[in-house]
Amino acid sequence: MPTVSFLPFSIVLGVLGILCVGFTVYWSHHWLGGFAWDGSSHMFNWHPVLMVTGMLVLYGIAALVYRVPLSWEGSKLPWKLLHAALAFTAFILVVLGLVAVFEFHNKQGIPNMYSLHSWLGLSAVLLFSCQWLMGFLSFLLPWAPIWFKVLYKPIHVFFGSAILVLVVAASISGINEKLYFRLTKTPTPYSMLPAEAWFANVLGMLILIFSLLVLWALARPSWKRPEVNTEDLQEPLLQAPK
Amino acid sequence: MPTVSFLPFSIVLGVLGILCVGFTVYWSHHWLGGFAWDGSSHMFNWHPVLMVTGMLVLYGIAALVYRVPLSWEGSKLPWKLLHAALAFTAFILVVLGLVAVFEFHNKQGIPNMYSLHSWLGLSAVLLFSCQWLMGFLSFLLPWAPIWFKVLYKPIHVFFGSAILVLVVAASISGINEKLYFRLTKTPTPYSMLPAEAWFANVLGMLILIFSLLVLWALARPSWKRPEVNTEDLQEPLLQAPK
Repeated sequence: MPTVSFLPFSIVLGVLGILCVGFTVYWSHHWLGGFAWDGSSHMFNWHPVLMVTGMLVLYGIAALVYRVPLSWEGSKLPWKLLHAALAFTAFILVVLGLVAVFEFHNKQGIPNMYSLHSWLGLSAVLLFSCQWLMGFLSFLLPWAPIWFKVLYKPIHVFFGSAILVLVVAASISGINEKLYFRLTKTPTPYSMLPAEAWFANVLGMLILIFSLLVLWALARPSWKRPEVNTEDLQEPLLQAPK
Repeated sequence: MPTVSFLPFSIVLGVLGILCVGFTVYWSHHWLGGFAWDGSSHMFNWHPVLMVTGMLVLYGIAALVYRVPLSWEGSKLPWKLLHAALAFTAFILVVLGLVAVFEFHNKQGIPNMYSLHSWLGLSAVLLFSCQWLMGFLSFLLPWAPIWFKVLYKPIHVFFGSAILVLVVAASISGINEKLYFRLTKTPTPYSMLPAEAWFANVLGMLILIFSLLVLWALARPSWKRPEVNTEDLQEPLLQAPK
């Protein structure tokens, strides 16, 4: 694999992340009518913005914390805390993103959880919740035995990437269905690719490229934090009573 | 990671693959009206069946060829040929799957390539074509220099998984949009989850689980074929003239 340094990669990924959030905000503001927190369709518009910001961009950044070469030296604890804090912030945004769509549905009398998009999306959120909780209990609190940490770590690492696969599928199907809802009865339907359809399709492709870059960075052997000993696993947030 | 042997894993994956194809055939036959090759909606019905069979199940099996422990001993050439042949068969099915939907669109006057599903799906097929061609030129024909094979191999391996991520997103968005198309004007719309919606949503979840299992098997370090020397890379289908 060609040698790529982490800094230029981070800059490209950062720009892509900003574009993903920026495109979603612009779509929601310019075409979908802007934001409110009142159960109207303007409340729904928080859903894509909060999900793309939390479940895609912040989640992706959180997953990559241990790929920062700075994190390879000295204590792992501050990086563990950063990893957990970023993921927790993402989780808060995701919960708000769910509230936005459920409140909108409930106020408008639209059923919840029927589409494949919603099944995928909720699966992603549930897996993410388990992932965060299990990570916290296993790697930050002091009570998990070493054998359990050694067993669980590769599972945590695999689900870090797997959840992102669900996020890609949920984002793509969400954008796709929103465009069908929106552009069915308009003079220029989705099939005639009006400006909004072009714009949101490009957003979908940006989300895909951002996610593939994160998955690539996570899979690169030379970017993985070298585990020189098991001390890393033995450094919890709290110390167990002696 | 808990010890799992490859044989029981293969059986579970095989059953899941059969379920994915079986569910798609049943949906197309029972609810979508069956099959024809005449430009009608019955021609469209080949599209999901050929895509799930080729781009998901056969592709997934092809990707896992080198995880079969039997492939780790002796010459790599028969396994390379099997890998290429399975992927090529998948490619033929995928091309037929594209013909099915384009012919249907053209005959019915429906525009092509406007939805995000189609952008994602075509990206997956184009990447798959490049992947197959580059793999054939690099690892089966004798002319690629060793330094190029060493450089290209991790790229080929990464895109093997990345293309599957695109396939998941394309499948989920495809099933989701087909259900909206189908169940918009029916007495029990998609939002009331009639039997067809349940069935196709479950198909989407089966596709997701099948893909995650393939990605998991590809990522497992202990299931990777040990590369004891560079002889593997030097064993092409044809011998270059001395």
